[in-house]
Parts: sequence; C-alpha cells; structure tokens
Amino acid sequence: MDEGLEFRARQSIEQVEEGTELAPKFGADGLMACITTDAQSDEVLMLGSMNEKAFRLTLETGEAHYFSRARQVLWHKGVTSGLVQKGIEARIDDDQDALWLRVAISGSGASCHVGYRSCFYRAVPHGGQVDQALSFVEDRKTFDPVAV
Amino acid sequence: MDEGLEFRARQSIEQVEEGTELAPKFGADGLMACITTDAQSDEVLMLGSMNEKAFRLTLETGEAHYFSRARQVLWHKGVTSGLVQKGIEARIDDDQDALWLRVAISGSGASCHVGYRSCFYRAVPHGGQVDQALSFVEDRKTFDPVAV
Repeated sequence: MDEGLEFRARQSIEQVEEGTELAPKFGADGLMACITTDAQSDEVLMLGSMNEKAFRLTLETGEAHYFSRARQVLWHKGVTSGLVQKGIEARIDDDQDALWLRVAISGSGASCHVGYRSCFYRAVPHGGQVDQALSFVEDRKTFDPVAV
Repeated sequence: MDEGLEFRARQSIEQVEEGTELAPKFGADGLMACITTDAQSDEVLMLGSMNEKAFRLTLETGEAHYFSRARQVLWHKGVTSGLVQKGIEARIDDDQDALWLRVAISGSGASCHVGYRSCFYRAVPHGGQVDQALSFVEDRKTFDPVAV
C-alpha cells in the first residue's frame, strides 16, 4: 500500500524492541491483535484484530478501525451505532505484534455487541472456587441489541 | 484431559454469550488469547496465549500459566524470575475465546522480558502526529534483562 504512514523494515531484535521505529508485524493471517481499553475507567473493552489497513486508518484518523474475522471486512467501529472509539493513546508491545489502544467512547459507552460496556462482562471462578458458575460483573446492558 | 475443571460443550450463541456456563473456545492452533493487566494500576502488562492446559492451571492454581508460542512449551510465568502473577480476577469475553486476567505481581512488578513493567512501553504517534518516532512511556527498566 502506498499510504502516508511509513513502516520500517524489521531488521533486528534491538531495533524492534529497544528502538523508536514503527516496524509492526502482522501474523500469517495478516492480522495484529488490538487490546482496547476505556481511557477513563481503564476497563478492558474488547480484544480486536487489525489488518494493515485497519492499523493505518486507526493511527491516521485517530478512530479505531478493526478487521472483522467473522465477516472478513474492514470495520470502522461505531459508525452505524454512533459508538465510535476515539483513540486517546496507542501503545505497541515489545516485538511490535500487538497494539494497546486507549479510547474514549461517545454515547452509552458500550463496546460489546451483546449490549454490555465491555465484552468481558463475566468473571470466571478460580482458585478454590473453580467449577462454580460464571458471574456477571455488569449488572445491566447499556443497550438492547435486539432493538438496535 | 481428565482434570478437575469441567468445561461445557458449546451449544448455542445464547448459552455461550448470555449464560453462566464455562464453554471456552480454543483456536485452530489450540490457543486462547489472554490480556493480562495489573490489578492495582489497571495497566495492560502483556498479551499472552494459553492452551487448554495453561488455562486450566491458571484457574485451578490462581497463578498465571501461558503457552509460549516461541518456545512451544507450557510456561508458569515468574517461576524462574520470582515475578509470579497472582490472579485477582479472571474474566472471559462474549464468545468465550479470550481471557482478561487481572493480576498482582510480586517483586519489582515487571512482566516484560525486555525489562519494563509492561510489554507496552512505547506509544505510537497517531492523528496529526503520525510518522513521528515511537516514544517510551516507561522511563526506566525495572530490571536488567542481561544481568538476570
């Protein structure tokens, strides 16, 4: 692609991990994982995927774009629902194959298609409580997905 | 595997997304993504992978276990460094194919092999600042990976 944002070639572990050049790595499926958190509450909202185009658009426009693995399409999050995710900060990990995006969300603040704020709305019992049921940590949906 | 923790068969979207049964989904590579955050600061520390064994051990022992894709081995995080990740809360996402683990870390609190607290120690310029260099958000390493 010949878009504005320039990526550097990956040359060494030192360059990728210790340097200041953006040299991202997309997997065999062309995708990079993106952890999206609410910049205000620090809650993890979702784990998305970005192809190179979505990654570029996210950085260039400052609004989260993903690649939907289910639908195999580029996806400008919130364009139909109004719940656009505005990027506050983007961070890349040591080997530059994962993104952490801190966002602000307009409207109800929901990010999950099921209707909750976060996709991670259920806690899994662990330690001594293994084998108990999942418990809901959000007490109500922020919107009715059927109505929307 | 015939271990203690019982997983339910995945039967419907409603069961998986709206229910309280643990019915996790591992990818074609046998792995599930795990977002690990510091339960105190809410900072994202790392994005790891778990196979079924690592997932079970994490829930059963209350300490984070991962599957190292690079080394293709089960990995009890922190056992050699002393920086064990103690699970405070585990949450699973809507379609039960990703985990969010909130942890407390002993010692220096580092999680990244490069020496930083978080693997996400560099910010990526976005919006009007695209094409500027990455910037370090952690001002110093918590340990010297060469010495360790």
